[in-house]
Amino acid sequence: MDEQRLKDLLARVQAGTAPIDQAVAELRQLPFADLGFAMVDHHRAIRQGVPEVILGQGKTGAQIVAIAKELARTGQNVLVTRIEPEKATELVEAMPDVRHNAAARTCTLEKAPIPRLGDAKVALVSAGTSDLPVAEECAETMRMLGIEHERVFDVGVAGIHRLLHRRPLLEDAGVVIVIAGMEGALASVVGGLVDVPVIAVPTSVGYGASFNGLAATLGMLTSCASGITVCNIDNGFGAAFAAGRILRARKKAAK
Amino acid sequence: MDEQRLKDLLARVQAGTAPIDQAVAELRQLPFADLGFAMVDHHRAIRQGVPEVILGQGKTGAQIVAIAKELARTGQNVLVTRIEPEKATELVEAMPDVRHNAAARTCTLEKAPIPRLGDAKVALVSAGTSDLPVAEECAETMRMLGIEHERVFDVGVAGIHRLLHRRPLLEDAGVVIVIAGMEGALASVVGGLVDVPVIAVPTSVGYGASFNGLAATLGMLTSCASGITVCNIDNGFGAAFAAGRILRARKKAAK
Amino acid sequence: MDEQRLKDLLARVQAGTAPIDQAVAELRQLPFADLGFAMVDHHRAIRQGVPEVILGQGKTGAQIVAIAKELARTGQNVLVTRIEPEKATELVEAMPDVRHNAAARTCTLEKAPIPRLGDAKVALVSAGTSDLPVAEECAETMRMLGIEHERVFDVGVAGIHRLLHRRPLLEDAGVVIVIAGMEGALASVVGGLVDVPVIAVPTSVGYGASFNGLAATLGMLTSCASGITVCNIDNGFGAAFAAGRILRARKKAAK
Amino acid sequence: MDEQRLKDLLARVQAGTAPIDQAVAELRQLPFADLGFAMVDHHRAIRQGVPEVILGQGKTGAQIVAIAKELARTGQNVLVTRIEPEKATELVEAMPDVRHNAAARTCTLEKAPIPRLGDAKVALVSAGTSDLPVAEECAETMRMLGIEHERVFDVGVAGIHRLLHRRPLLEDAGVVIVIAGMEGALASVVGGLVDVPVIAVPTSVGYGASFNGLAATLGMLTSCASGITVCNIDNGFGAAFAAGRILRARKKAAK
Amino acid sequence: MDEQRLKDLLARVQAGTAPIDQAVAELRQLPFADLGFAMVDHHRAIRQGVPEVILGQGKTGAQIVAIAKELARTGQNVLVTRIEPEKATELVEAMPDVRHNAAARTCTLEKAPIPRLGDAKVALVSAGTSDLPVAEECAETMRMLGIEHERVFDVGVAGIHRLLHRRPLLEDAGVVIVIAGMEGALASVVGGLVDVPVIAVPTSVGYGASFNGLAATLGMLTSCASGITVCNIDNGFGAAFAAGRILRARKKAAK
Amino acid sequence: MDEQRLKDLLARVQAGTAPIDQAVAELRQLPFADLGFAMVDHHRAIRQGVPEVILGQGKTGAQIVAIAKELARTGQNVLVTRIEPEKATELVEAMPDVRHNAAARTCTLEKAPIPRLGDAKVALVSAGTSDLPVAEECAETMRMLGIEHERVFDVGVAGIHRLLHRRPLLEDAGVVIVIAGMEGALASVVGGLVDVPVIAVPTSVGYGASFNGLAATLGMLTSCASGITVCNIDNGFGAAFAAGRILRARKKAAK
Amino acid sequence: MDEQRLKDLLARVQAGTAPIDQAVAELRQLPFADLGFAMVDHHRAIRQGVPEVILGQGKTGAQIVAIAKELARTGQNVLVTRIEPEKATELVEAMPDVRHNAAARTCTLEKAPIPRLGDAKVALVSAGTSDLPVAEECAETMRMLGIEHERVFDVGVAGIHRLLHRRPLLEDAGVVIVIAGMEGALASVVGGLVDVPVIAVPTSVGYGASFNGLAATLGMLTSCASGITVCNIDNGFGAAFAAGRILRARKKAAK
Amino acid sequence: MDEQRLKDLLARVQAGTAPIDQAVAELRQLPFADLGFAMVDHHRAIRQGVPEVILGQGKTGAQIVAIAKELARTGQNVLVTRIEPEKATELVEAMPDVRHNAAARTCTLEKAPIPRLGDAKVALVSAGTSDLPVAEECAETMRMLGIEHERVFDVGVAGIHRLLHRRPLLEDAGVVIVIAGMEGALASVVGGLVDVPVIAVPTSVGYGASFNGLAATLGMLTSCASGITVCNIDNGFGAAFAAGRILRARKKAAK
Repeated sequence: MDEQRLKDLLARVQAGTAPIDQAVAELRQLPFADLGFAMVDHHRAIRQGVPEVILGQGKTGAQIVAIAKELARTGQNVLVTRIEPEKATELVEAMPDVRHNAAARTCTLEKAPIPRLGDAKVALVSAGTSDLPVAEECAETMRMLGIEHERVFDVGVAGIHRLLHRRPLLEDAGVVIVIAGMEGALASVVGGLVDVPVIAVPTSVGYGASFNGLAATLGMLTSCASGITVCNIDNGFGAAFAAGRILRARKKAAK
Repeated sequence: MDEQRLKDLLARVQAGTAPIDQAVAELRQLPFADLGFAMVDHHRAIRQGVPEVILGQGKTGAQIVAIAKELARTGQNVLVTRIEPEKATELVEAMPDVRHNAAARTCTLEKAPIPRLGDAKVALVSAGTSDLPVAEECAETMRMLGIEHERVFDVGVAGIHRLLHRRPLLEDAGVVIVIAGMEGALASVVGGLVDVPVIAVPTSVGYGASFNGLAATLGMLTSCASGITVCNIDNGFGAAFAAGRILRARKKAAK
Repeated sequence: MDEQRLKDLLARVQAGTAPIDQAVAELRQLPFADLGFAMVDHHRAIRQGVPEVILGQGKTGAQIVAIAKELARTGQNVLVTRIEPEKATELVEAMPDVRHNAAARTCTLEKAPIPRLGDAKVALVSAGTSDLPVAEECAETMRMLGIEHERVFDVGVAGIHRLLHRRPLLEDAGVVIVIAGMEGALASVVGGLVDVPVIAVPTSVGYGASFNGLAATLGMLTSCASGITVCNIDNGFGAAFAAGRILRARKKAAK
Repeated sequence: MDEQRLKDLLARVQAGTAPIDQAVAELRQLPFADLGFAMVDHHRAIRQGVPEVILGQGKTGAQIVAIAKELARTGQNVLVTRIEPEKATELVEAMPDVRHNAAARTCTLEKAPIPRLGDAKVALVSAGTSDLPVAEECAETMRMLGIEHERVFDVGVAGIHRLLHRRPLLEDAGVVIVIAGMEGALASVVGGLVDVPVIAVPTSVGYGASFNGLAATLGMLTSCASGITVCNIDNGFGAAFAAGRILRARKKAAK
Repeated sequence: MDEQRLKDLLARVQAGTAPIDQAVAELRQLPFADLGFAMVDHHRAIRQGVPEVILGQGKTGAQIVAIAKELARTGQNVLVTRIEPEKATELVEAMPDVRHNAAARTCTLEKAPIPRLGDAKVALVSAGTSDLPVAEECAETMRMLGIEHERVFDVGVAGIHRLLHRRPLLEDAGVVIVIAGMEGALASVVGGLVDVPVIAVPTSVGYGASFNGLAATLGMLTSCASGITVCNIDNGFGAAFAAGRILRARKKAAK
Repeated sequence: MDEQRLKDLLARVQAGTAPIDQAVAELRQLPFADLGFAMVDHHRAIRQGVPEVILGQGKTGAQIVAIAKELARTGQNVLVTRIEPEKATELVEAMPDVRHNAAARTCTLEKAPIPRLGDAKVALVSAGTSDLPVAEECAETMRMLGIEHERVFDVGVAGIHRLLHRRPLLEDAGVVIVIAGMEGALASVVGGLVDVPVIAVPTSVGYGASFNGLAATLGMLTSCASGITVCNIDNGFGAAFAAGRILRARKKAAK
Repeated sequence: MDEQRLKDLLARVQAGTAPIDQAVAELRQLPFADLGFAMVDHHRAIRQGVPEVILGQGKTGAQIVAIAKELARTGQNVLVTRIEPEKATELVEAMPDVRHNAAARTCTLEKAPIPRLGDAKVALVSAGTSDLPVAEECAETMRMLGIEHERVFDVGVAGIHRLLHRRPLLEDAGVVIVIAGMEGALASVVGGLVDVPVIAVPTSVGYGASFNGLAATLGMLTSCASGITVCNIDNGFGAAFAAGRILRARKKAAK
Repeated sequence: MDEQRLKDLLARVQAGTAPIDQAVAELRQLPFADLGFAMVDHHRAIRQGVPEVILGQGKTGAQIVAIAKELARTGQNVLVTRIEPEKATELVEAMPDVRHNAAARTCTLEKAPIPRLGDAKVALVSAGTSDLPVAEECAETMRMLGIEHERVFDVGVAGIHRLLHRRPLLEDAGVVIVIAGMEGALASVVGGLVDVPVIAVPTSVGYGASFNGLAATLGMLTSCASGITVCNIDNGFGAAFAAGRILRARKKAAK
């Protein structure tokens, strides 16, 4: 159910051709296609301007397939995140149009064209090769949200000149996403270099005292660079989504 | 030293009236007014478009006065955060133009008019009365950054209807800042209601298992609402600054 | 040994047909059927009104089988929780009447009919599909305790309207059990909506800063909604049992 | 605004003497008496059957006075928890009818008679003398909620016979609240002795590895006694409120 | 090298038949049979009265075999703890006299008869069937140390009468070892019942908020029963060893 | 009520001069002198052989005085631990025979002579001067328990020769208590030097990563020296009490 | 590109044969051989005097091979750390000159001779056999850095005489590296024995309260021996690298 | 007692003028001047080449005075760290030659001239003004150890150009000490810029998620720059001492 259909319904209410009770009933039933284990929320596309996202982790393959099919049935684009390889295989077999990106641990389905979200670019900065899966998830999510982005990879702070070399690109970005594990210092350095929005994603890369990303998370939250905001550990999806919020508000304002 | 002065210097270099060595020397010395204990960074105004901010915590009153005076000498606006009452008194006595906001724990000095940062408003949402000091710090920082904002206070999730009542205001905002302690659930609910950027600030409000804001921080980082980003505990300043990054990039893009 | 047998014994004492020493001896030996590694407590059915529950985790398949057989021998109903698939298979092979619920990770055996525990219903609310195993364990335990319940699944706070839609059902419940992972905010919202008893179960669903359920646990303990009580992480069994305590006391009082 | 006034308003709607728009407006404005820093929620009394509770911690004396006065103005009973002595003095001076209980850290105001909440008693069990402030807060909250209760103090598990001595009282209670610090083992022992609802409150009593109540909290959450539920550390108020939820539902069902 | 051999050497020194330099050299080389990766310490038997113990965890099978052979070569008894099944198999194949106890995760070799360590018994109390591996490790260590012990299993505090039933045995013991997971409350209850030495061993049994034994550890350290001492999580070996220290000192004193 | 009085009562039962009902009643009432806020347990002296100990922390001065007076009334010796100076003054003023030891934070009252507990000595070893308050509490407790002890102070592992110098004394002790903060390594070194019982007390001495004694606690629990047992942080009382358990059992056995 | 090539380039600039723009371009392109997923930094050899190190953990086998080949192509020595066996096999198959050290979890490639780094020796001290993998990684790194070292293995503090026996060797070392798990006390003892630089490496050896090396880390950070510095858990590589920094600065100074 | 006195004693032994027994006795008594609560260790000056350091924290003023006097009596230099102002006043009053540095929280006494420790300089780098107390403690310790140093203050990573500006100074240093709070990223950036030894000191500067220095500690331990070593939180003394170890070994080697 897309926005147009909602507006049509409300117009019928205004025109008197749909009694209020009936409109209420129609509204109430439509958005919830009850699958027994998950209410697929067709309203969210209206509320947030993006398709339903399925968190693969913790769901069985059969559950993922059922939800994805229900979404596809209504013509929506689908993004599955944190999906294990076997479940991805199960999904692709059930829905051959689905595309699996193993590095990103995502599956995507494009039922409708994805319009570009504004004209700004996002700079996607990551500290090391081991951070790639998170960066890939982030990039794949941005692709599904229509966000153009450029990658700046392997610019850890231990070799600060590599990063300084890329400063112009960072300054021109609409948003900078910084993905870093270990001590996560990259976010502070980038935050000090540019004055655009900086979204920091701590990763679980590292060992010992990194405590699965805790070190990077605490470091980014207490960054000495002002106005950096932080996502959950390894949450490349969330960072892309947050960038989407910024660009969407900007696009709406530009109208 | 403002941006114009930098451009003038570079123009002289281009025109040949300033040899490169001399220009380098001028640049290198200008930004660092060495006070013995702190390099006041006049460059930052150029790099980030905002005046120097002084973190009051951990500095002596004498140090704060010295830094503030050095900044004022060059005509910059000053914001001191997390300043204890006695140090604020000491500062106001030394610099009578300084304004102390006790609730916000800030001192401010406006040497220059503050231009409005874009035309979007920020919605400043807080869960309870006990969160007010953090909200005030946030509001005071926004005032110094030229960000217009509207307050939506005391809308904790335990009385969800209060929040729903204010939804239109939230949806029209350019950025929503959510300040909440205890379990911090307000950020998730707001994040699900609107599709604009949401910046969450956990507070140390609560006791026992809130562990000085840890509960709210973990809760906001793991929010089930997508694309929420998080600041440090009690960091109202940081949230305002992050909103400033978003609005500034938007303003720059709008030109 | 059920309550009747206990009363019969005491009546014989009163009537003088059983000397005190003999009664003491009978009492002392009866409840402890010593299996070498576990004292199966037939008294508990008397003390708590429910059959013995076997925590499958940490026991070998052989141990589970032995305990279950001992219980069945005395005519009691059996509930095994947190049982791995292989051990469940081992148990079902040894005791073909046992029913394995893989989603709930439980095995059950009904030797006696299960009387309904009072006339109130429990509303079993869960935030997402990934919380289903915990919800299933909870439902299966309620079934064994004779508690009628209704499921309200997939109503996470990021889509608050889904939950509001189900408010009447929640208000009519005798107890509401809320099962949620990530930040666990659902408990706060439900707690604010209804004034019936709310039992919150944090789950280990989530990743990164959820720290295996710690985020949800701290969030639920520090909930801004008053009078919510909390169970251990993933402890669907415990929530059902706590609901049973409430309903049993209510039933006893209604007599 | 009490329930009767709400029903009257709805009756007028039904009778046609109040147009829907006007009724909506009346409803919307009534519950929110905007004090600038806190929306006093007169609706809560309708929704949850209890008066507004003011968490004293983190509020200034002036804020507490203002909220309490607004509540008193509408004839409601008031309970202030976790209030420091000076603020209590400030409140009592401003509102001489207010009663300060220093041991409980509460202030109360009875504008209306408090009806007894059902006919069951709550057993309030605490482990040691140092737990008294939390027990007092719990008792004072129960008094304001109309809950009859009996105290069983100083029955720590290190002297188990003291507790066993009181078992009949515990078994007859409608709810047992167990308040204990250090390792919090009392909750497990009580939970094993009785089959009524058991609400456990960990306290910050102890030192060293008690980590301000963390030890007791983890202990109670992982109790080997089934169906115990847990409140926040030192949250005597919350336990009383949870007992109130149980007794209210029971009373409602008994009608 | 046993104590006799040491005394013989020193006697030769006293008698003048061994020059000091030579004696020093003999002493220095004897105790260290350098295997390249581990100095097997034959002195320890002298210093502590017990044979060398090999912590299996973290060592390769080949390393365990080499150390065990070196020890056996000098006629010492050997105890290997925390050994995985495959490595145990490897050891038994290399040294057929070695006895593997799978439940205890130990391997033992008796080259010399084990004298009984004093005439007191140790009571080995455990809370649940899942604690058995730790209890077995403890029992196996006691066997190797010559400590007589009696088992009191499955006496969790949720069924306190089972424990009270066994009180005479506990009071007669020279030492009571209490092994419990989850909240570990058993240690407090036992500590309150008896006045003999109580050694508490927290186990990793439990899930969720037990955090792999942290809950039980904190609980035992902060026990309200006075004079309980605590071992590392799952350290059945350590508890037996500590009991051995007590009994050995007692035996020595009795001479 | 001492052991003799108990035996007398039972003799009267046996002799038939005291009916069972009356004996039960006498037993039940005697041990509990209900003060309103604390059940003073006269039974404990029978059960554990030591007088009642009052944990001063968390009690008001008035409560401490009341409990101490009740104990003194029955002729028992009293030990108050962790008592603040002002409360100690209050106690001494109310009961002039009470002796305050400021360094140990204890108050003691000797109503009856303290018999020596066995003939073994305890070696009380501490790492640094800052650990003295804990060591003093331990020493004062041992004095009240009749335990003879010798102090070995300021022998931190950073100067290992100081400790080696005192080895003979340690080897001759019946129990060694090791009190150390920071990393707590002293316990491991002592545990490796001697084969008598070693009780380790972590202290909160240190700063930064000592996290108020957590570092020492974890270090002592995971000590590479076998059979060391650990008390709560700063719990000098507990260590003395544990030593008392060892010596009492030994004395009882020696009879 | 080695230091000589850099100096040649700058000489050409000075001589005027290389215009500044061209020099800048040459410099900027040379160090970054962009592989798509990792910027191999040939500059580092110039900046830090050591070859590129590849952290194997978190990289795919293909990524490791690609980076290693790129490095080898420019004639540099390569060290891969924390590489799993299968990836090591993949690397060795792709580059047969690579040498795999399974115990150390490293792969190395010597394209150029390794000059000895100064004339001091490093003493590599480890507490137990289980620490060997970390010690091996450390030793292998030292070999690649040209650092001569001597091993002192299996000298845990529970048998302090073993360590004292090796004191002369420690005192003669240029640097002492101490590798220890469990409570990590060895670092304190060594730090007290010698006055040369001591680098402590906590390991994850241990179980229970060692919390994967946290106990040892906190213990080493709070060591009572002055001037000990600490590396990440299990970071044998880092300790070797830190020793390299010390020896390199010393060698440079000696020139 | 200095090294010369030791050598003189041994020479007398060699010459036969001091019997071995007498020499042993002299040695054993000399180093330990037993003050009752602290063994002042005159041997340490011999073992570690530095005077005794008194940790002021946790000692009474009287204890500090007594230890300092005993040290002064033997002609040693004294450094007291972490001393509160009142205790410092007490010390200065008792020993007027003592110099109190309030910013550094140290007291020092120079009884003997302090020889320069080698010819290298230490660069003392700190991130912000709030880190000054730790930096001062470090500087004061270096002064007492004879270490020449240069300060590079207020060069946080959020303004990376300030740091790059000082790179030559860092590269010429014999050791770089980096003192930083919040996220502690400065250590990583410095570690990537230079190849000399880098000692990182996390500080407790910051709030919220800095958790009193935990964030910086974890960040520095997991730094992506290789070979950085870390001291305890706020331990400026320890960093200076560690630098002293490096410079002393270097000086010894240069002879």
